[in-house]
Amino acid sequence: MDGRLMPATMFGFKLGQAEYIRNAGGRVTDDVIRSLFVAQELLHTKAILLVHHTDCIRDPNLMHWRSMEGLKESVKEDVAKLRASPLINKSIEIYGFVYDVKDASLTEVTRSVKSMA
Amino acid sequence: MDGRLMPATMFGFKLGQAEYIRNAGGRVTDDVIRSLFVAQELLHTKAILLVHHTDCIRDPNLMHWRSMEGLKESVKEDVAKLRASPLINKSIEIYGFVYDVKDASLTEVTRSVKSMA
Repeated sequence: MDGRLMPATMFGFKLGQAEYIRNAGGRVTDDVIRSLFVAQELLHTKAILLVHHTDCIRDPNLMHWRSMEGLKESVKEDVAKLRASPLINKSIEIYGFVYDVKDASLTEVTRSVKSMA
Repeated sequence: MDGRLMPATMFGFKLGQAEYIRNAGGRVTDDVIRSLFVAQELLHTKAILLVHHTDCIRDPNLMHWRSMEGLKESVKEDVAKLRASPLINKSIEIYGFVYDVKDASLTEVTRSVKSMA
């Protein structure tokens, strides 16, 4: 949800090359799975890139409210939730990232792709 | 959700000036209200801009699957749903738009602001 993050720029996507689903926390909710299902069925999704980020409260005193380790855990949890969903095709690759707003760096935390299934 | 739409460009927002919530259909779901509540409490939201758009299926044969009139109705419905939510502060202004991907035009359909309450 955080407007400081521009996922198209982050991943170098051109206009219309990817779809964007955004909510508070970047968490996988039923509504996110509904949207992904629509994208999958109508727009033939090949991969899902899930991103959680630091400093979501935007308070310097709470900069570490969610630690990098905590964010990595929530990313792993959400990638596992997507992979376990009966609505998401098993052929779709899923990648999980943490984005650090401090230095605009993106770190891959986990992935679930066919060769590893 | 549609990656052809860039809300920051659409409204001329600078980086971090607005938050973005995106899902299939641009519909107001419980997850959207949760995200708006988080934004309101942490980031002091002043206004909500809701946008539905044409050509969501991206099939020239189904370009009119959701007519402009149908989209205007769904925008009005969702603005009313936001205004009726006990979680959204009554001081927040809510504006509803339809975006036409054909000519990149944005049309205001409805608004709910204090002076009209």
